[in-house]
Amino acid sequence: MQYGSIEAGGTKFVLGVADENMTLLDRYQFATTTPQEVVPQIIQYFQKFDLDGIGIGAFGPVDINPDSPHYGTVLSTPKPGWQQFNLLAALKSQLDVPMYLTTDVNVAAYGEAHLGAARGKHNIVYLTIGTGIGAGVINHDQFYFGHSHTEVGHMLLQKHPDDDFAGVCPYHGANCAEGLASGPAIQARFSEGAQALAADDPFWAIEADYLAQLCMNVTLSLTPDIIVLGGGVAKQSQLFPMIRERFNARLNGYVDTPALSDYIVPVGLGDNAGITGALLLAQEAANA
Amino acid sequence: MQYGSIEAGGTKFVLGVADENMTLLDRYQFATTTPQEVVPQIIQYFQKFDLDGIGIGAFGPVDINPDSPHYGTVLSTPKPGWQQFNLLAALKSQLDVPMYLTTDVNVAAYGEAHLGAARGKHNIVYLTIGTGIGAGVINHDQFYFGHSHTEVGHMLLQKHPDDDFAGVCPYHGANCAEGLASGPAIQARFSEGAQALAADDPFWAIEADYLAQLCMNVTLSLTPDIIVLGGGVAKQSQLFPMIRERFNARLNGYVDTPALSDYIVPVGLGDNAGITGALLLAQEAANA
Repeated sequence: MQYGSIEAGGTKFVLGVADENMTLLDRYQFATTTPQEVVPQIIQYFQKFDLDGIGIGAFGPVDINPDSPHYGTVLSTPKPGWQQFNLLAALKSQLDVPMYLTTDVNVAAYGEAHLGAARGKHNIVYLTIGTGIGAGVINHDQFYFGHSHTEVGHMLLQKHPDDDFAGVCPYHGANCAEGLASGPAIQARFSEGAQALAADDPFWAIEADYLAQLCMNVTLSLTPDIIVLGGGVAKQSQLFPMIRERFNARLNGYVDTPALSDYIVPVGLGDNAGITGALLLAQEAANA
Repeated sequence: MQYGSIEAGGTKFVLGVADENMTLLDRYQFATTTPQEVVPQIIQYFQKFDLDGIGIGAFGPVDINPDSPHYGTVLSTPKPGWQQFNLLAALKSQLDVPMYLTTDVNVAAYGEAHLGAARGKHNIVYLTIGTGIGAGVINHDQFYFGHSHTEVGHMLLQKHPDDDFAGVCPYHGANCAEGLASGPAIQARFSEGAQALAADDPFWAIEADYLAQLCMNVTLSLTPDIIVLGGGVAKQSQLFPMIRERFNARLNGYVDTPALSDYIVPVGLGDNAGITGALLLAQEAANA
């Protein structure tokens, strides 16, 4: 058995092929240009293999409801050519392979749920704190969506009193988590970016408070069993005790959560959560 | 067929009995004291009828997972005697009637979903803005819960620049929705309470902004098809256009929602959402 994975990101597409033990056999990547250029590259690449299933994690907003007539369609996006483009249908029309598509963050959440930090949990929020801030959400072992998938990275936060940053969110300025606490928000404050800041830089206390606020609002709305933090900014491991401390101070015991050291945790699969989740979903699609 | 309803509130219990057309035949209420006093009153009252099902909406926090060994148990609460008390088990041990228990707000959400403002919707958030602020959440026609039920009334809000109120939430002061925008928060600002304020009082712009922030965070996290606002404060109908305007300004088009006049709406069942939902759940339990 062979499985394919597609990580469809805003800047690049990463394709992978693995055997039935989830061992990666091959990998291929190219820039995210237009669908007219991207789709043939995917088809030509995967036609070289005899795949049993393909799992796809796509940038959003995208219709992730398998029962929707528009399942797999990229919705409003500034990316040229992608608006209302049905990526899943385009691939299915040329590749006779079972496929499953969901958001990039859901795919990473799925990887963490099955082989990473959230193993054994049924209600999972995977937060990526990177170029953007977003959440993969699993509720009772199913991807959560309602009218659409969540966009928790744009929830409102309270500005830290020591922070006079103007924010980078084009929609919400310094009002939302993405505007205040994403990788680009750190880059805009310190031109060297997060990696160049010392682990004891006073800024991390501000970042930790923002992420604690986000975790608090996620706890009160989505009530997960675990919150897994991934993405570039979450590689700053000194943040975790600080986030937990601020979360505790802000929530102030109002609701019961698991012990915070088991509740707000880093990824278990490093940068491989996405590809792992996509391959697992490929396997699911093959067995469906 | 006859159905019973229990609205178990923090200050009073309201019991009802209806026929198969959901016509109320009888109603009985008493103060919420201890479980040792409350349970016998419920049993004695319902033993006078030949009930086919009972639906229960309970104050929280309460275990609402029908698959949990603690289903129906009131969790941490300051109410004397109720902590860790399994209300559902106590009733079932003395009444041989099928029962379904969920939160008071879920029961109201269920009423609005089936016979009220949210008819035909599958993903519903019912927000009550009254003594407290809480949400009943229905996702794909099922009550939503994860580790527990939601507590969206305690999500963090941004303080309005014209508001110097210290907040009434014992846990979060002026940081959360309940602390800033609940009935008691209005009462603490203006000793006459919400009813005595003129409809064009400038305070309503502040209240509307807080409720718009809450609706925005609910939209981004739970992504409902509709948000129904009930409870005493939501009777101020002048709030609705103001909430929609502030919601629109704050969300700034980031995600697609239904037209706001169909998205942020008042209850359809007035004060009867709770009893209606409880009776419908009694019917469901009888037919299960």
